[in-house]
Amino acid sequence: MTALNQAASLSIPPAARAGDPLDVIDTPSLILDLDVFEENLRTMQVLTERHGVVLRPHAKAHKCPDVALRQIALGAVGICCQKVTEAVPFVLAGVRDIHISNEVMGVAKLELLTRLAKQAAVTVCVDHARAVDALGGAVRTYGGQIGVLVEIDIGQRRCGVQTPADAVALARRVQSMPGLEFVGLQAYQGGLQHKRSLALRERACIQAAGRVRKTLAAFAQAGITCARVTGGGTGSAEFDVAHGAYTEIQAGSYPFMDGQYAAIDWSNGLSFKHSLFLTGTVMSAPTPERVVVDIGLKSTSAECGVPTAPPGAPWRCIAINDEHAILQAPRAGALPALGARVRLIPSHVDPTFNLHDTVVAVRGQKVEAVWPVSARGLSR
Amino acid sequence: MTALNQAASLSIPPAARAGDPLDVIDTPSLILDLDVFEENLRTMQVLTERHGVVLRPHAKAHKCPDVALRQIALGAVGICCQKVTEAVPFVLAGVRDIHISNEVMGVAKLELLTRLAKQAAVTVCVDHARAVDALGGAVRTYGGQIGVLVEIDIGQRRCGVQTPADAVALARRVQSMPGLEFVGLQAYQGGLQHKRSLALRERACIQAAGRVRKTLAAFAQAGITCARVTGGGTGSAEFDVAHGAYTEIQAGSYPFMDGQYAAIDWSNGLSFKHSLFLTGTVMSAPTPERVVVDIGLKSTSAECGVPTAPPGAPWRCIAINDEHAILQAPRAGALPALGARVRLIPSHVDPTFNLHDTVVAVRGQKVEAVWPVSARGLSR
Repeated sequence: MTALNQAASLSIPPAARAGDPLDVIDTPSLILDLDVFEENLRTMQVLTERHGVVLRPHAKAHKCPDVALRQIALGAVGICCQKVTEAVPFVLAGVRDIHISNEVMGVAKLELLTRLAKQAAVTVCVDHARAVDALGGAVRTYGGQIGVLVEIDIGQRRCGVQTPADAVALARRVQSMPGLEFVGLQAYQGGLQHKRSLALRERACIQAAGRVRKTLAAFAQAGITCARVTGGGTGSAEFDVAHGAYTEIQAGSYPFMDGQYAAIDWSNGLSFKHSLFLTGTVMSAPTPERVVVDIGLKSTSAECGVPTAPPGAPWRCIAINDEHAILQAPRAGALPALGARVRLIPSHVDPTFNLHDTVVAVRGQKVEAVWPVSARGLSR
Repeated sequence: MTALNQAASLSIPPAARAGDPLDVIDTPSLILDLDVFEENLRTMQVLTERHGVVLRPHAKAHKCPDVALRQIALGAVGICCQKVTEAVPFVLAGVRDIHISNEVMGVAKLELLTRLAKQAAVTVCVDHARAVDALGGAVRTYGGQIGVLVEIDIGQRRCGVQTPADAVALARRVQSMPGLEFVGLQAYQGGLQHKRSLALRERACIQAAGRVRKTLAAFAQAGITCARVTGGGTGSAEFDVAHGAYTEIQAGSYPFMDGQYAAIDWSNGLSFKHSLFLTGTVMSAPTPERVVVDIGLKSTSAECGVPTAPPGAPWRCIAINDEHAILQAPRAGALPALGARVRLIPSHVDPTFNLHDTVVAVRGQKVEAVWPVSARGLSR
């Protein structure tokens, strides 16, 4: 047999095709309930518009151009990406406004950034003078025009400059570089997104916003305009649209609603529903109290806990291994049978999308489309 | 610009090329130190040969045909895969003996299994009569000859039949099906692999082996030969080669040695060294006590904890987010500088390999090859 014949004889069929009924989707697969997904998209778009704030959804959550284009069609100004390579499939799909919400170090990355900047409006974060110099040098060498946001640390203790004076100094350095344009500030506090209590979360948001305002006052005093102040996430959006410190919200998880976000309290005015699931097959039913599903760490991330059962399921997921999820039920007969299909809710959307080459978009009882997760694995 | 021109203008260069010095490998990347890797391969091969036990390394750990071919060249009898699709790139690369160390449910999967069985010796596990019937039906429909192992539960409480009598009954059912050949038993206890104490781990292995022997006694009484008894892992291999219950060891992590396995005690007679690392770049250095590296949950799995610093490093990794790892040091000046390269040790090899399209194989100060992780994402 020739190598070509051999490859053909071992071809792996796609997990699903448009028009398939749900029960022929091969497992494990990531599936997106389009009706719920679209409602979630509208909910966040309406929330931001009502407060006159721009929505720039974070594409690191889904890495899927088909999702981004729907967000933009509804009114999002563009997207955020966390890495330079991650932005490539979105630009190729027609996204024309991309913010790299992160610091970028390294010649290869900066060179690619300048190529992106020739095909889309591109902004990037800095928090160090040497990063500004390297960025300015890349633009000098490779051409292009890049917008720059100074990242400030508002309590996350990750990246970001530490004082308003340092932020102003860095903005001045940006302004001194031909090809770079100072655009404003990035102020993101990931640590408060999953605070369970609504009251504590609101208080943390107000406190973080106070730090943003202090920096903005220093910029006003220095006579430097911050046209854009970007930050916020799914857990803080309700407060971040209202306190006035931000011009732009970066939420990423809201279209999908994962286990982590389902575990926090939500107000009456705002709610997102689960649209994203893993679908699996019971491949072992060794005892009446336990069944094993073919979903594992290779198809759902678990650093935020095991995936959870959909609301109302009479069983729960108690453990997850590389290629197995173990389900238990408190009473006999409550578990799905051998060969049955189950849905699990991923605990953390972002790294879960990053495990899949495709997401199966379903509506009602049919597969509507299979969308490529084109930025999967693009972490450089 | 045409779509083709646009795609060309945004091409992403490879992370590394053969011959590159280490400091031009783009980050984050998975790198494999070949000298250490080869020593680890030899250590396990020698251990199994000394005890007259066969080594069938688990390819779910690395998903990389270049690794599997080196294991086989040293004497491994073939490989294990955990999923049917996972086996495809290994068969295409020339591996001719593959054990699917798992239960398989679903028509599409069984059909692919029969195609694999026409190009390689293929075995698979069963733990239920209906699974045997489905497998027999697939072979009847699609042709091929498939070897079958009855999986028994020796304490992991995952898959596997619960009693010796059930195991014998299932073997008889396999023997009654044309196209299926009963090969033996699979008995894997993942739960004891990471017991820290050497003495407790040995005791748990002996206990698990006792369950295997009890089942083997029932097979002897029934007059059924178990030609193969497969199980064991990196943490239990030293004991599993010696107690005589196994004919074959399935260890997967030993070529690489992750953070989890480094945290358990090892005997003087057996040791594996770290060969697998994430290489990252310090992309933010906001305070003297903290730097941030461009390695995150999209390049290393963290359900078993954050990645760890190489032995002797004067800093440690204290947190990991989607695309950030945060390093701290107890004293000023001990942290790597902005733009510097660092290595981290993944806490869990298997899901970490599954995040990467390639692994950069290095020897000394040079890149020797870039190996595709061909089975990445193949979880069906």
